[in-house]
Amino acid sequence: MRIGVLTAGGDCPGLNAVIRSVVHRALTGHGDEVIGFEDGFVGLLEGRYRPLGLNSVSGILARGGTILGSARLERGRLREAADNAEELCRQYGIDALIPIGGEGTLTAAKMLSDAGMPVVGVPKTIDNDISATDRTFGFDTAVMVATEAIDRLKTTAESHQRVMVVEVMGRHAGWIALESGMAGGAHGICIPERPFDPADLVAMVEERFARGKKFAVICVAEGAHPAEGTMDYGVGEVDKFGHERFTGIGTRLAVELEERLGKEARPVILGHVQRGGVPTAYDRVLANRFGWHAVEGVHKGAFGHMTALRGTQIEMVPLADAVVELKRVPDERMDEAESVF
Amino acid sequence: MRIGVLTAGGDCPGLNAVIRSVVHRALTGHGDEVIGFEDGFVGLLEGRYRPLGLNSVSGILARGGTILGSARLERGRLREAADNAEELCRQYGIDALIPIGGEGTLTAAKMLSDAGMPVVGVPKTIDNDISATDRTFGFDTAVMVATEAIDRLKTTAESHQRVMVVEVMGRHAGWIALESGMAGGAHGICIPERPFDPADLVAMVEERFARGKKFAVICVAEGAHPAEGTMDYGVGEVDKFGHERFTGIGTRLAVELEERLGKEARPVILGHVQRGGVPTAYDRVLANRFGWHAVEGVHKGAFGHMTALRGTQIEMVPLADAVVELKRVPDERMDEAESVF
Amino acid sequence: MRIGVLTAGGDCPGLNAVIRSVVHRALTGHGDEVIGFEDGFVGLLEGRYRPLGLNSVSGILARGGTILGSARLERGRLREAADNAEELCRQYGIDALIPIGGEGTLTAAKMLSDAGMPVVGVPKTIDNDISATDRTFGFDTAVMVATEAIDRLKTTAESHQRVMVVEVMGRHAGWIALESGMAGGAHGICIPERPFDPADLVAMVEERFARGKKFAVICVAEGAHPAEGTMDYGVGEVDKFGHERFTGIGTRLAVELEERLGKEARPVILGHVQRGGVPTAYDRVLANRFGWHAVEGVHKGAFGHMTALRGTQIEMVPLADAVVELKRVPDERMDEAESVF
Amino acid sequence: MRIGVLTAGGDCPGLNAVIRSVVHRALTGHGDEVIGFEDGFVGLLEGRYRPLGLNSVSGILARGGTILGSARLERGRLREAADNAEELCRQYGIDALIPIGGEGTLTAAKMLSDAGMPVVGVPKTIDNDISATDRTFGFDTAVMVATEAIDRLKTTAESHQRVMVVEVMGRHAGWIALESGMAGGAHGICIPERPFDPADLVAMVEERFARGKKFAVICVAEGAHPAEGTMDYGVGEVDKFGHERFTGIGTRLAVELEERLGKEARPVILGHVQRGGVPTAYDRVLANRFGWHAVEGVHKGAFGHMTALRGTQIEMVPLADAVVELKRVPDERMDEAESVF
Repeated sequence: MRIGVLTAGGDCPGLNAVIRSVVHRALTGHGDEVIGFEDGFVGLLEGRYRPLGLNSVSGILARGGTILGSARLERGRLREAADNAEELCRQYGIDALIPIGGEGTLTAAKMLSDAGMPVVGVPKTIDNDISATDRTFGFDTAVMVATEAIDRLKTTAESHQRVMVVEVMGRHAGWIALESGMAGGAHGICIPERPFDPADLVAMVEERFARGKKFAVICVAEGAHPAEGTMDYGVGEVDKFGHERFTGIGTRLAVELEERLGKEARPVILGHVQRGGVPTAYDRVLANRFGWHAVEGVHKGAFGHMTALRGTQIEMVPLADAVVELKRVPDERMDEAESVF
Repeated sequence: MRIGVLTAGGDCPGLNAVIRSVVHRALTGHGDEVIGFEDGFVGLLEGRYRPLGLNSVSGILARGGTILGSARLERGRLREAADNAEELCRQYGIDALIPIGGEGTLTAAKMLSDAGMPVVGVPKTIDNDISATDRTFGFDTAVMVATEAIDRLKTTAESHQRVMVVEVMGRHAGWIALESGMAGGAHGICIPERPFDPADLVAMVEERFARGKKFAVICVAEGAHPAEGTMDYGVGEVDKFGHERFTGIGTRLAVELEERLGKEARPVILGHVQRGGVPTAYDRVLANRFGWHAVEGVHKGAFGHMTALRGTQIEMVPLADAVVELKRVPDERMDEAESVF
Repeated sequence: MRIGVLTAGGDCPGLNAVIRSVVHRALTGHGDEVIGFEDGFVGLLEGRYRPLGLNSVSGILARGGTILGSARLERGRLREAADNAEELCRQYGIDALIPIGGEGTLTAAKMLSDAGMPVVGVPKTIDNDISATDRTFGFDTAVMVATEAIDRLKTTAESHQRVMVVEVMGRHAGWIALESGMAGGAHGICIPERPFDPADLVAMVEERFARGKKFAVICVAEGAHPAEGTMDYGVGEVDKFGHERFTGIGTRLAVELEERLGKEARPVILGHVQRGGVPTAYDRVLANRFGWHAVEGVHKGAFGHMTALRGTQIEMVPLADAVVELKRVPDERMDEAESVF
Repeated sequence: MRIGVLTAGGDCPGLNAVIRSVVHRALTGHGDEVIGFEDGFVGLLEGRYRPLGLNSVSGILARGGTILGSARLERGRLREAADNAEELCRQYGIDALIPIGGEGTLTAAKMLSDAGMPVVGVPKTIDNDISATDRTFGFDTAVMVATEAIDRLKTTAESHQRVMVVEVMGRHAGWIALESGMAGGAHGICIPERPFDPADLVAMVEERFARGKKFAVICVAEGAHPAEGTMDYGVGEVDKFGHERFTGIGTRLAVELEERLGKEARPVILGHVQRGGVPTAYDRVLANRFGWHAVEGVHKGAFGHMTALRGTQIEMVPLADAVVELKRVPDERMDEAESVF
């Protein structure tokens, strides 16, 4: 068989490990050929691809980024790809396509699959918010990076008797904030799923100071927001220097807490360090397994499906299940976290 | 309620995180009291314990080791504890005991539980070989430490055109070797579950050298052994300097490969660095959750049970299920790994 | 003898290692007593101190922050301390004071010394900008943290074909930007010592894109600024949400580059993660040595001096030499860095 | 100009950073050409080399190992190279050679230089034992790896109430043991420069246990040895399984201490993990600077010299100064370390 592979969407530690695993399994396990499209679906449409042999993927297991590049595709061109799904396969002589990507990519994958392209998807997101899989690779690395930052900030907050507000990634789901907050021992966690009241944070900090713990670290997902009416949230106009554009909830909350508490509060916005670089061992193992099973999925004809972690097993689940709704942090997970603040 | 907690068995990153979580949840969630027995069951028998308040567990979340200490208890004295199970509880005024430990500890916990002590266990092992839970805390840290070592050894092996044999922990189960070997991109993995033939490793190395990859890294669990008749395994006499005592499979295999290949082979025995120190974020989260749910288990009367990870949930499972047999690496997991060598 | 020790100024990895080293050397090497003042000079004035024995400093070698706390002292109260320098020593029965701190602290130390207090200083700053010592502890850790961030950002920048602007600490001197930029392989470095022209950065990025390297990482010290007339720098009014307050050169430069290049540019502000947490081995060794030699300095009567690294030796240099001027990055160091962009 | 570069001797983190820096500085700073010889002096003799452009060194800054490979050259063939020194230069059209290597390599470099080859050396050793330079790259990484291991072992030693003996590299000089022992807070350090008496270690451990610190970590350089008559050191015969070959001082000392103390003692031999993998920021900066200055040295005609760190400056020193004697740990450095045990 001849299999195409591509990576699409934002950077995510483990992409290269999946590519390598697909190539190894396909070549040494099945005697297949593999070609890699460059810059995601753009390369698929524009015919930019290259053959991937064992040497092409040598040494990339632990490397961040993606050797194939990634780019966004406008909706219109995706439609174009779907309309020519079978023709594209013929053109490149591929028997299957393995797109590796997040929710948008998997939605596109489903569209191509519905249009007749033999597709086996591999889910990817540092946000861990894809339904139908227990975890995604990249998430563990993001949590580790955020946790190491919180570890460092705690000693500084303590020495300076300060409140630190750490903003981590997570626009629609609070998984990174939840797990790094828990692992780092943050004293407050704010996630999109549960609008927060700054008054609760103020009370927590004051209670801590009262019993001699003169510092606090609060971990906030970038998509977290105050409950209605609890905090003046500003209007977000953009000036020439883009202030608004880059002023997220972390900074706003730090300002708000400083005003209410009359104590120094400082924001730290972790940003893109969470989505690049060497993946953790956990993510490498998961990425390896996803790649292996994607190739098996191709050989078993599991088209229209994607790999998913369920307990300790990798299973094939319909792409449709993955994209119906985001996987959000359930209440009981926040309950677990809150009791150890 | 008044809850006792103890840690027993070998060191494992995350023990302190469990203790802290138990104390936080019990005190702030339920208004309980917690006492900690020192040096595992020994402290329980000898009446060595101390009250654990929020301050006692401040700052220990990310610290390796256990603030309560750990020690082995001879079987006879364990029997003695079981015979006085109810009396011991009365003596310390405890309504429940939360022992945190590996297979031996959980077996002891079951014995005490059968004898009438209200026990909720928390499983612990870096080896990940406890049945009834998908993973145990400490394992992720051990895999990470081993993976980072393999990452470093690969560049050295390549520069020196050498074979490196890395021996990792895992006496009865090969989980650490499997996952660190996969994550590190080892070219061979040997685990106790699947006796190996040195001839296969020799063939793999020669194939690599033939195609210009003039190095190899082999990851071996300490409990791995050659298939019958494939390798002269020595007799293991002990001289004054304890040579035999410390000569494990990693060293033997390196010697064997060097002889058969006529190329330099070097053993690296990672040893105890795998079981100490700062836990990974993953292990801290799991440890936190286990502690939280153990306290809930106490309040729900789930005695004779232990916490277990099942998919993304923490469930309570009978201690009996945990100790019937070791969780060993299944064949399909090795298949996944082998194809990406 | 009886020696007082205190830590003042911002957090810096290695403070605890110095305290521990002072205590060990004084107690086991000389049979001295040591007391630690809390919250820097504030504790000295307010009589808040505690005896430091071997157990008080057990386990703190690798811990970030300072067990003694730190706080800023207003200039007026410092004057008050100087006026009562000898009286304060009598009051606490101390024969010498070892203040550990940055430029402000060393200036204060000099003032106290001039007023008759027997003082031996230990220099501390993550910024490495204290004259008279080759390096200060804390700097290596800050550089390491910043370098690891740049390592991660490079793969993300490459995958997304983006420009990343990383802002690191360094208000008056560009040492952290210089060394982390060099170590991380940044493609541009901006430091306070050398005003930059955004046009040069634009040219560099365009040259890179032209030869197929479709990304760039620029490392900017927080105190860097454009050369006069090269960039509209804004006025910095502060709105209720403190936008301006937190909009530093990193963000401004990213906006400027995005506008000029017509390509995505993103700022990452590392902030306080650079000054907390576990110190590197290098910093621990240097901190250990400084503490040891400070005690020796006390016993040799080297008052009015501080410890300093000169080549491989620790020497005692006059406090006056340390505070005359900041140690700034010399031109040749930037030349070395620029040629490997 | 046309410059040749090669790496020889054992692996050392930072080699690639030097190669990259040489290429960048030569090409972009001077418009030179650079060729890289493969496998050290072997490639020089056998004519195996390749041109090195900017793309050849892209992405290697933080990578362990050496892209040029390394190999040992027998003394006879080195003689042969020296005899044809000028002819070799003509043959490859090179105006200068930059060999990067340890003591052996620098001795060879001196021989070639004496024979008329224009040579500028770059010193390299994780052992830090080259005279005439304050530090060498690779050393900081080795110390960091060893320190992280000691950090992990301490918690395990404490939980198990054990003595741990960590053997680190350093055959002739104890720098790694000294600095990692100090940074990790080891309770004993044994180095080749100062033969140890096991009785002192026994006394130290017993004193610790007596005051409630029921564990100890001892850091031993592989070249450390007991003072004459203090310990039966065995004869070292080699059996088929190579026991003796791999039984170093770490293992012997653990056995000896266990016997004398009647307490569990365990050896951990760190081995080759100390010399591979990603270099620390410190080592990358030093390697970058050495590469830059080596090229400057070539252009200034500083042949027969090598780069050296002196304080904060890189200077050119005669090769002869580097190879007269090993740089060994002076007594005062051990004194500093011992007082903080």
